[in-house]
Amino acid sequence: MAKEIERKYLLKDDSWRKLAQGTVYCQGYIPTQHQVTVRVRIVGKQGYLTIKSPTVECSRLEFEYPIPLEDAQEMLRTLCEQPLIEKTRYKIEWEGLIWEIDEFEGLNKGLILAEVELNNINQQIVLPPWVGEEVSQDPRYFNSQLVTHPYSQW
Amino acid sequence: MAKEIERKYLLKDDSWRKLAQGTVYCQGYIPTQHQVTVRVRIVGKQGYLTIKSPTVECSRLEFEYPIPLEDAQEMLRTLCEQPLIEKTRYKIEWEGLIWEIDEFEGLNKGLILAEVELNNINQQIVLPPWVGEEVSQDPRYFNSQLVTHPYSQW
Repeated sequence: MAKEIERKYLLKDDSWRKLAQGTVYCQGYIPTQHQVTVRVRIVGKQGYLTIKSPTVECSRLEFEYPIPLEDAQEMLRTLCEQPLIEKTRYKIEWEGLIWEIDEFEGLNKGLILAEVELNNINQQIVLPPWVGEEVSQDPRYFNSQLVTHPYSQW
Repeated sequence: MAKEIERKYLLKDDSWRKLAQGTVYCQGYIPTQHQVTVRVRIVGKQGYLTIKSPTVECSRLEFEYPIPLEDAQEMLRTLCEQPLIEKTRYKIEWEGLIWEIDEFEGLNKGLILAEVELNNINQQIVLPPWVGEEVSQDPRYFNSQLVTHPYSQW
């Protein structure tokens, strides 16, 4: 179990692209109630099953387990809400923190988000020059929400 | 991933008790939609996370993973619907099949169920003499239903 504290931002420009190589992520959500999320994810040939508690002030509990690729494929196909989320994730280290930039595909094409994970909610952050408006508190940007309300339909 | 095909019965009498020792199970469910179940279970000092598809004709897909005890305790406490299901499970081999007898506690006290797992839906079963009425198709007996509609309130 881990405590996930993260802040989320839009991007100002494309200058981050030269700083990282991307990795393709495919993920889906088993429909739940009360804002608990049950996520199935494939990165390369590895599956993951992740349970997250509701977010309170940028913070939530996260329980993540590696699972066989075949299990993840079967759950994504038969149990997860469609369409699935496909995105390319880029990781960039900046002033001692790891920034994850997600470039979405499919019905969310055009959306690019930068996330940074923190040790505590009051941690000071040096924002990289390519980071724009903060959207941490806007539920439209939750990946689980992007399944039912994709960016192209906003 | 496994395919779970099982039939479920009430018990006729107590003659099965001399055939087995019981093990205490504690489990809960993360509230979901569309009859997919996400179960957190503790048996002894081992936690398990189990995802099951909806049941169609006694059969469902099951994905089960061992997880750390502390994770299971935290998820049962913070993410699962209350009250939790507590039961003692007895395993009895009978004519080549393993029968699992669950004796429920708490708000489900008084309920005892026998389940047998099959290789295919048409498999012939020799019913032990202590097995009574079949309730495989009755959703009231699903463990996930016994949280919100416990036996003592039927």
